[in-house]
Amino acid sequence: MLALADATFPQAVARFADFLRIPSISTDPAHASDCRTAAQWVAGQLRELGLEAALHEVNWAPPGHPVVMGHHDEAGQPGAGDVGTATAGTGTSAGKPTLLFYGHYDVQPVDPLALWQHPPFEPTILQESDGREVMAARGASDDKGQLLTFLEALRIWQAQSGSLPCNLRILIEGEEETGGENLPFFLEAHKAQLDADLVLVCDTGMPNRTTPAVTTSLRGLVADEVTIHGADRDLHSGMYGGAAANPATLMARALATLHDANGAVTLPGFYEGVSKPTEQQLASWRGLFPDENLPLRAVGLAQPAGERGFSALEQTWARPSCDINGLSSGYEGEGFKTVLPASATAKVSFRLVAGQDPEKVRATFRAHMASHMPPDVRISFKPYGASPGFALDRDNKWLAPILEGLSAAWGTKGACIGCGASIPLAEQMKTILGLDAFLVGFAQDDDRIHSPNERYGLDSYRNGIRSWLHILHRLTQPGAAPGQGNAPAPQPR
Amino acid sequence: MLALADATFPQAVARFADFLRIPSISTDPAHASDCRTAAQWVAGQLRELGLEAALHEVNWAPPGHPVVMGHHDEAGQPGAGDVGTATAGTGTSAGKPTLLFYGHYDVQPVDPLALWQHPPFEPTILQESDGREVMAARGASDDKGQLLTFLEALRIWQAQSGSLPCNLRILIEGEEETGGENLPFFLEAHKAQLDADLVLVCDTGMPNRTTPAVTTSLRGLVADEVTIHGADRDLHSGMYGGAAANPATLMARALATLHDANGAVTLPGFYEGVSKPTEQQLASWRGLFPDENLPLRAVGLAQPAGERGFSALEQTWARPSCDINGLSSGYEGEGFKTVLPASATAKVSFRLVAGQDPEKVRATFRAHMASHMPPDVRISFKPYGASPGFALDRDNKWLAPILEGLSAAWGTKGACIGCGASIPLAEQMKTILGLDAFLVGFAQDDDRIHSPNERYGLDSYRNGIRSWLHILHRLTQPGAAPGQGNAPAPQPR
Repeated sequence: MLALADATFPQAVARFADFLRIPSISTDPAHASDCRTAAQWVAGQLRELGLEAALHEVNWAPPGHPVVMGHHDEAGQPGAGDVGTATAGTGTSAGKPTLLFYGHYDVQPVDPLALWQHPPFEPTILQESDGREVMAARGASDDKGQLLTFLEALRIWQAQSGSLPCNLRILIEGEEETGGENLPFFLEAHKAQLDADLVLVCDTGMPNRTTPAVTTSLRGLVADEVTIHGADRDLHSGMYGGAAANPATLMARALATLHDANGAVTLPGFYEGVSKPTEQQLASWRGLFPDENLPLRAVGLAQPAGERGFSALEQTWARPSCDINGLSSGYEGEGFKTVLPASATAKVSFRLVAGQDPEKVRATFRAHMASHMPPDVRISFKPYGASPGFALDRDNKWLAPILEGLSAAWGTKGACIGCGASIPLAEQMKTILGLDAFLVGFAQDDDRIHSPNERYGLDSYRNGIRSWLHILHRLTQPGAAPGQGNAPAPQPR
Repeated sequence: MLALADATFPQAVARFADFLRIPSISTDPAHASDCRTAAQWVAGQLRELGLEAALHEVNWAPPGHPVVMGHHDEAGQPGAGDVGTATAGTGTSAGKPTLLFYGHYDVQPVDPLALWQHPPFEPTILQESDGREVMAARGASDDKGQLLTFLEALRIWQAQSGSLPCNLRILIEGEEETGGENLPFFLEAHKAQLDADLVLVCDTGMPNRTTPAVTTSLRGLVADEVTIHGADRDLHSGMYGGAAANPATLMARALATLHDANGAVTLPGFYEGVSKPTEQQLASWRGLFPDENLPLRAVGLAQPAGERGFSALEQTWARPSCDINGLSSGYEGEGFKTVLPASATAKVSFRLVAGQDPEKVRATFRAHMASHMPPDVRISFKPYGASPGFALDRDNKWLAPILEGLSAAWGTKGACIGCGASIPLAEQMKTILGLDAFLVGFAQDDDRIHSPNERYGLDSYRNGIRSWLHILHRLTQPGAAPGQGNAPAPQPR
């Protein structure tokens, strides 16, 4: 199959370009019909592969761009959940899993247009200074090229074997770039059709040019707004300064107690349930990022500011954190006003790792802040989102075959990496569908997603397709291999 | 003279009402000509008393309402500064001091008009529930009634004796309510004409209904804006939270160190030069304010928040303080944005007492804040005003006769009180003219200055006039007395 993938790669690139020509900007109502065209284009691809495919309207919230659903059930293939006894990757599987694949056809706006070297919807193959070829266009990396790696792998599989590898559910949405408010409703409404054993998501990146990766942890979030109320009006700081409680001062003092001298969060029980990365995991990360402060240097900083004893990478990938996201009190305009503020407000959020209970963190935060207030001051809170951290069990049976497939495709051992942010989709798949999401993507940090001159390496595209072929083999035909292509995983020149 | 004052009080009240009918709102350009009318009215009064009087244009800054200057030099009266050897109040004066009197003819706007029980420029005598009579109108207390107490005293003196008590310089400005930007320029430009031995100011209040007072201390101010700069852009709090320095968090931590656990300011040397009130002074204040937390309760608070070991009164009247006047960082709008702010700004001010050096406080504040920053964070400062605290020397030779005069007029021992705020005029008199200002006023806390239904007690007006008569006698004719009026200082019914 890899040989066929190599042989037909030019056609795969042509289809990639076709997809990129559709300006499916989801946030701009002027491009609503383009979004529909993109959805129809994806549905057409799925039908070419032999899946049933349909557009589903989503109108729980704006903008309402259709979701593309593809469906394939093999004759005689057991349904989802019947492969529970399989030991994946060991070749003893009693059946094949049903796979749910997720991607999104919508793209970011293109402003500022003047900064684009080529028109954003006229895909252009460029050669970078190191000789690496990239497809430049809006959406090339996020997420059209990425989602096509999976569909192109299915196309090879179908062409080579005359059938698809297993039962498939394909979900390609069109609102990922606009907040995706419809998706949870859609998942809830289509639980029955989305019966699968695991979810494959292709919308993440690689830690460097050559190391494929599964993002196995994400941080959750709990956000709270706290307001301290002092006097019933702003006071003259001369008449009252020194004697009247100052909510801004009290806010600073209370917020200052949220971390100890070592940068650890002081809330009682905050670290309960937090597990440290294994030595093996840490060694792997150190191997991937010999300069762990590189991301900080890129934004004008140099020193990891978090918990002492943890690298910057650990601080964002594996440790919970507490940050002030907004502060507001008193007079904030130009000049100076000697007002003693009646109130002070802070927006505070915690990034959580798996094992922490968001609502417990919120409750301890509130109790902690309240405990620092003098008796005649009032404190109030306003809750914002709460979502737990995400972590794939290292013993999850699908993880090993996926990493093995990645390693085989790239010629470099696949890594498990973390991500400090939250990806709501991964949580929604778990909470709504009960499925583990495997975040496998081939994007690079310099793909310029959301920025002018977005690009996707043709190495990512080619090895992405190869990766899925390897992974699909290992998930559905343990012990078999997808054959050899013309080349081992190419290295950037 | 007191008998004449009593006998002619109705005419004094009528002149008061005339003055109040002029809507001299200085901040409203529509009332510019009313301000000029008020200035002319004042100049007319001065001329009736036998002073030379003129309007002086002030156009260094808007709005430019004229200053009224009155001038009187007795034939054979030694010039200002020639009474340096006098021991005031002991009757051994070798000459009379030259007095500079300050007041302002401008008034605050009247909004919201609907809340006035009587039209603000139709002065009305009302009887309060305790029987006390008040003149209700905008400007009654601030400052038309107050400044008239002095002019009416001069009128009595002139009528009784056929001359004025001493050399006089009268300065009545029209921009006190608009920031008074022209006044320092005017003082500088008219130094020669403002040659005096001391300044009498009638624009302050009494601690209660019956105790006359000199405000002998004011707090100075030093104001600084501090900004902490972290990353070169706002960061995604998921991708960077925990590892990247957060300027809002650093700001909270640094500001929290400005006070110790006892509420004292921690800057090194901050309390150098600060003297504590004498036991006698404290006893006097306790006598005036048996419930020292009353001012806090009036604004919805109950507990003094400042330095432990000092009463709320001491905290504002006699102790320096540090307050946050504004805080601003990150996302401050509705909702939540998980941004890690690139910067955080605080406006911080210190109220200073006499003996503290404002610029030294600014320098130690800046050094203290900077010392709390990690190496890769930048901190910057923007200076705002700096003025020292004001305190009359308790041994100042003019203080005793003034207090004696007040005590005689009110039948209650005159007090020395403090004020936590800054009155720029008092400082300007000292720094520009080299003169000590004696802040003697008869306003009450419930005079509603700056608010609807402003009023001035006729007891304040009557005893204010009597007070100046007593004071003028003691300053110019030590040993003599202004005679007896019909009544001792009336008590409120």
